Amino acid sequence: MLGRMMDMPLTITHLLRRAASYHAHREIVSVRPDKSRVRTTYGDLATRSARLANALTKLGVKPGDRVGTLAWNHHQHLECYYGVPAMGAIVHTLNIRLAPAEIGYIANHAGDSVIVVDQSLWPLFEKFRASVTSLQHVMVVRDKNEPLPPGTLDYDAVLAEASPDFAWPELPENTGAMICYTSGTTGNPKGALYSHRSTVLHALTASLPDVIGFAMSDVVLPVVPMFHASGWGLPYAAVLVGAKLVLPGPHLDPTSLLDLMQQEKVTVAGGVPTIWLGILALLDAEPKRWDLSSVRTMAIGGSAAPPALIDGFRVRHGLSVTHAWGMTETNPVGTVARVKPHLEADVEAAKALRATQGLALPFVETRHVDDTGRLLPWDNQAVGELEVRGPWVSASYLKDEDAHRWTADGWFKTGDVVTICAEGYVRITDRAKDVIKSGGEWISSVALENALMAHPAIAEAAVFAAAHPKWSERPVAAIVTKPGASATDDELRAHLATQFPSMYLPDAYVRLEQIPRGSTGKFLKTKLREQYGNILLG
Amino acid sequence: MLGRMMDMPLTITHLLRRAASYHAHREIVSVRPDKSRVRTTYGDLATRSARLANALTKLGVKPGDRVGTLAWNHHQHLECYYGVPAMGAIVHTLNIRLAPAEIGYIANHAGDSVIVVDQSLWPLFEKFRASVTSLQHVMVVRDKNEPLPPGTLDYDAVLAEASPDFAWPELPENTGAMICYTSGTTGNPKGALYSHRSTVLHALTASLPDVIGFAMSDVVLPVVPMFHASGWGLPYAAVLVGAKLVLPGPHLDPTSLLDLMQQEKVTVAGGVPTIWLGILALLDAEPKRWDLSSVRTMAIGGSAAPPALIDGFRVRHGLSVTHAWGMTETNPVGTVARVKPHLEADVEAAKALRATQGLALPFVETRHVDDTGRLLPWDNQAVGELEVRGPWVSASYLKDEDAHRWTADGWFKTGDVVTICAEGYVRITDRAKDVIKSGGEWISSVALENALMAHPAIAEAAVFAAAHPKWSERPVAAIVTKPGASATDDELRAHLATQFPSMYLPDAYVRLEQIPRGSTGKFLKTKLREQYGNILLG
Repeated sequence: MLGRMMDMPLTITHLLRRAASYHAHREIVSVRPDKSRVRTTYGDLATRSARLANALTKLGVKPGDRVGTLAWNHHQHLECYYGVPAMGAIVHTLNIRLAPAEIGYIANHAGDSVIVVDQSLWPLFEKFRASVTSLQHVMVVRDKNEPLPPGTLDYDAVLAEASPDFAWPELPENTGAMICYTSGTTGNPKGALYSHRSTVLHALTASLPDVIGFAMSDVVLPVVPMFHASGWGLPYAAVLVGAKLVLPGPHLDPTSLLDLMQQEKVTVAGGVPTIWLGILALLDAEPKRWDLSSVRTMAIGGSAAPPALIDGFRVRHGLSVTHAWGMTETNPVGTVARVKPHLEADVEAAKALRATQGLALPFVETRHVDDTGRLLPWDNQAVGELEVRGPWVSASYLKDEDAHRWTADGWFKTGDVVTICAEGYVRITDRAKDVIKSGGEWISSVALENALMAHPAIAEAAVFAAAHPKWSERPVAAIVTKPGASATDDELRAHLATQFPSMYLPDAYVRLEQIPRGSTGKFLKTKLREQYGNILLG
Repeated sequence: MLGRMMDMPLTITHLLRRAASYHAHREIVSVRPDKSRVRTTYGDLATRSARLANALTKLGVKPGDRVGTLAWNHHQHLECYYGVPAMGAIVHTLNIRLAPAEIGYIANHAGDSVIVVDQSLWPLFEKFRASVTSLQHVMVVRDKNEPLPPGTLDYDAVLAEASPDFAWPELPENTGAMICYTSGTTGNPKGALYSHRSTVLHALTASLPDVIGFAMSDVVLPVVPMFHASGWGLPYAAVLVGAKLVLPGPHLDPTSLLDLMQQEKVTVAGGVPTIWLGILALLDAEPKRWDLSSVRTMAIGGSAAPPALIDGFRVRHGLSVTHAWGMTETNPVGTVARVKPHLEADVEAAKALRATQGLALPFVETRHVDDTGRLLPWDNQAVGELEVRGPWVSASYLKDEDAHRWTADGWFKTGDVVTICAEGYVRITDRAKDVIKSGGEWISSVALENALMAHPAIAEAAVFAAAHPKWSERPVAAIVTKPGASATDDELRAHLATQFPSMYLPDAYVRLEQIPRGSTGKFLKTKLREQYGNILLG
């Protein structure tokens, strides 16, 4: 039957056109290593993205080619987020927190032909550049008063010489736009290829009031690095709606971030729990120092946020937290913890719901299965691996690696172990690899950690499995106490005993200066197991 | 390069699944002709849509077949909105306000094989049913205590007997979902075919904070009939986010609507200007009678809302209005009048912007052209026809009729005459066919109407072109005064003379009891021209 709708593709190119047409004067604030702030606009983003596309074309970059970035959050990185996909090429964000050999493996695996490097990250780049056999050109973003390394191109100088007009191609929406690699705690990192469609649909859905909610009146601070899973899509959502963007560069310490939030009147910030733990500690110490009245919400994701963190901001500082869950393979936000209106009345229950991973975003679907792949009931009891599907969930890794991560019926196996309640809230009890199997029972390390971090003396806690001659595994807690505070093993045991049966309580407490962290700021339990995994064997 | 995102289609089926999984207990309130309220839930919507799909399958309805509706806003109509497209068939909403012969033409043109009719609309149905040669079955929604007409099926009884399980097919997102016909003031009405994709993308984008903004805490009242352009997508957006839905049935008088808004704690209502003019008049007369503190915003569209209306709600009653523009061919919302943050400071300018048609929604694009198709500048001066494109804009009419409404490069010619300012705000100065061409100048009927409706004595005004021996055409104003108020021609001329050059002022004022209205509540200027078009020829 004739009569149809226009076949307009959902592309990053449209976001760029929209930014130029409607929000040309909206500001992008970039913090440089010397803490000075550079102010550009969305109009600049549009013309500089075109200049970048012209420059890359001249360097031989063709549709489908990969352009790597090794960079902090700043406007040049944002230009790569837009200019590279809009020309039909693929931007590949390299995670600077990985070991150099790993970054080299990743850049080579993706076949990056050009890499855009921050000058301040040059020492890191030098450690792996030789291993990237596909590399043809290096563009350096100047951020220090030093000459550029020989044989490199000055990013800003090259753009200044390029034409500000580029005839953006009309791309099919399934065109690849961006590659992010998983942080890969087991085996080699795997690449996820985001499409224009997945990126745009994610930005649109993340902007819904019940997800993070973005409006043109917002001032968005992606604390999360742009080399993590598209900076959670914040750089795309902000441009979609015309919000001001604040890009913090390398300054991710609590004081710098709080200064930035106050001075730029940030309304929405997003980052991993460890960032917010530091900020909460500083706010607790100096509650009057910053005026954060502009802040509408702080999005926390990347790993499960302890309820004590969410509640600490809410109760002691009147700051709202939006707790979200996602993965590199979900482009990245999959669920968000919004309390349904009819569940708000029970204050304690609502508090608990805000600390779950929450409800699937529209168009994402969740389910969980037992070891045999059997679907489990949404009864808040049955524990199993979370599986997801949706238009911004990976259907495969680059080069089809690890195909066993997908089910026969097309769902992605997340590796997160969860319960789901009748209302649909997902609650992570563990990463599959962190599950503690003790005498046939599964003990949730996450539940124990959350309870420990609610203790007034505890700053950080990570619970891991230690080998045990009788029970196979038993939980052990690594803890960091707050400055000047202390708690004995007996006190901690008594604290936990009010909430857990005795068989769930850790058999030992290891006191550390800091919990070891992985490249994305998550606690590195593999390291704890390596060091303390035999502590109970005597 | 391998590595890709899941190919998950954007379908109404997903919305239905989501409603069942996450919002099964959310309420749908339907007002019946006797003013009683029926309360169902989204869980009911899911199971009853499945029952409807089973019942229709049994009646022989196949994917692609058209199922008509002749109905007010209520849960059964909503079930047709979901069950019919989710089974792969196409729901076709018939506009009950058209002449019976026209409805018959439309139902026949679309080839409706089943029609779902409200019992209270049976007399209307009888007038055209014989002309629908494709019609095979009639299902009647019982809303009176009378026996059903012979040879018809009782909608609710048929559903009660059908299975509540239906294996929804996995539809490609470009599958047709719904047909709406234009109200067709010239020539025969034309059919627009909405797809699953266009419907879902529209619902998603309409839910953004800067468009109408929908959240699960909302209570949404579509005053706009569900037989107009998918009820502006409100029935899809509400289900997408899990908002409570309030469906007013046939009771669209101001008192009934205000009672409903107060009692059901409505947060967002949407309707055409004429509805809100009546409500504003009643609120002005009895400002203390209703508690409307739950209302977050009232969406106005369908035709241009006079600034006096928008400001009347804002200033006198503290009620926010969201002014939007759209057409049947745009599924339907295309632009919305949100004031950008940096334009808020100038209160008068912001007030004027809120009364424009506003900014294109994300993914929609606007431009305007002169008579020769040349692009016009966004300078707030150049007047030309608005053209739009976007993923929820029609690419053709059913049976490819009126193909001249699309440009060679694929934009839809709206027939609206507009200016666009540098910030991108579209302002309608006229419908193309209502433009007044006087001595080579174009006079905006909309600007004159808005100014007249800002006069304290004027309730409604419509300005139209009357033939003139010297100037070819001259403006004439049809006006309705408020009860007990009056204004002489001289007073009105003096009022307008403060805002317009003398050559723009109407040559005559026609005093009426009511401005004639078309089937969608818009003023019918064709009728005015028919009756008064020669008034200046003496």
